[in-house]
Amino acid sequence: MTRSAFLRARRPEHKQQRREEILAAARRLATESGVRNVSLGGVAAAVGLAKSNVVRYFGTREEIYLELTVEEWIGWADEVAARLATAAGPDDVVAALTDTLAERTLFCDLLGHVSITLEHNISVPAARAFKRAVHSAIDDLGARVALAYPGLTASEGIELAGAAAALAGTLFPMSNPPPALRELYAQDPDIAARCLPFRPTMKRMLAALAAGLPAQR
Amino acid sequence: MTRSAFLRARRPEHKQQRREEILAAARRLATESGVRNVSLGGVAAAVGLAKSNVVRYFGTREEIYLELTVEEWIGWADEVAARLATAAGPDDVVAALTDTLAERTLFCDLLGHVSITLEHNISVPAARAFKRAVHSAIDDLGARVALAYPGLTASEGIELAGAAAALAGTLFPMSNPPPALRELYAQDPDIAARCLPFRPTMKRMLAALAAGLPAQR
Repeated sequence: MTRSAFLRARRPEHKQQRREEILAAARRLATESGVRNVSLGGVAAAVGLAKSNVVRYFGTREEIYLELTVEEWIGWADEVAARLATAAGPDDVVAALTDTLAERTLFCDLLGHVSITLEHNISVPAARAFKRAVHSAIDDLGARVALAYPGLTASEGIELAGAAAALAGTLFPMSNPPPALRELYAQDPDIAARCLPFRPTMKRMLAALAAGLPAQR
Repeated sequence: MTRSAFLRARRPEHKQQRREEILAAARRLATESGVRNVSLGGVAAAVGLAKSNVVRYFGTREEIYLELTVEEWIGWADEVAARLATAAGPDDVVAALTDTLAERTLFCDLLGHVSITLEHNISVPAARAFKRAVHSAIDDLGARVALAYPGLTASEGIELAGAAAALAGTLFPMSNPPPALRELYAQDPDIAARCLPFRPTMKRMLAALAAGLPAQR
């Protein structure tokens, strides 16, 4: 009996349902508390399973969050594509990339964690699935960005879309500071004034990058 | 009188010496193993102190690494300033920012961790000292960048210097992948080919950004 036949015999629809329950719990907990504050034990407790049971569906906590990152990439790329269908120039493209990221706080939180924490402690197959899915999403999105932004090549469109995601991962934790920084900003307005706001900084950096990329050919 | 005899003879100097021993151990351990893999207990063991003794000098592991980040910021800004003194145009400025970061792997590792992990678990005074020191270093560096890059304002110089540091923090962990990704890249050359190399990506993004910033005025 092959491995997949064995798995099918064990009711794959049941297994899929469990996976989706685990993902939904991990999503809910991270949305409430931030990706960094959710443990595998917390996810297991939220779905009423033992940790040893959860790891039969996802090898590690990090693999759960990389799968959610893929879901978010696909959802984001789809929404940007829809907005780009009516984009009328550079400002609209930059706004489509920025506004959709600003509304997706879990995605931005995940993007900041991917290479710093999530890509550690995963299996090679999980890493492969993650990379292939992200590359596919960014290629599709980059092609659409290039079509909507006058004068950008497909490859430059991919660079702009990738820069948007990378910048969101950098700016999100800065513009959503932890308690000690929030207290500092309340006490020292001159320091608070230097905290980069998410949307204006995203728009300015992406607009400058898009304007400057063609000059690098 | 030797330096160490003098330091041992005076209480504040002795305390300063202990601080420097702790910082040196934390620097050595992170350089060897990566910032993410060093614990407070590991630093304490390396200097032969109990954790309860180390926290009399630095409140937390994160405060130790933010202090090292400040040291690195100042050292980096000084080195870029020296290189900019003989810079002869945009390419030289971008190369000065990029090459000095590429040589400072601990700084790049720290930059990736600042807002994701290090700014959590610190006191308000430690946060204040960190922010003031970084703002001072970046203002000084930004002014020098603007002087060396024809047509950039002081404020745009600060943006370019800040973008260089932020981008280094993003690209460093990507171009220094963890074991599962290294194994994946060895198995799948098509995935490895999409891993962004540090220096060329830094130079291209910074050159495009600098070229595009004036168009945003």
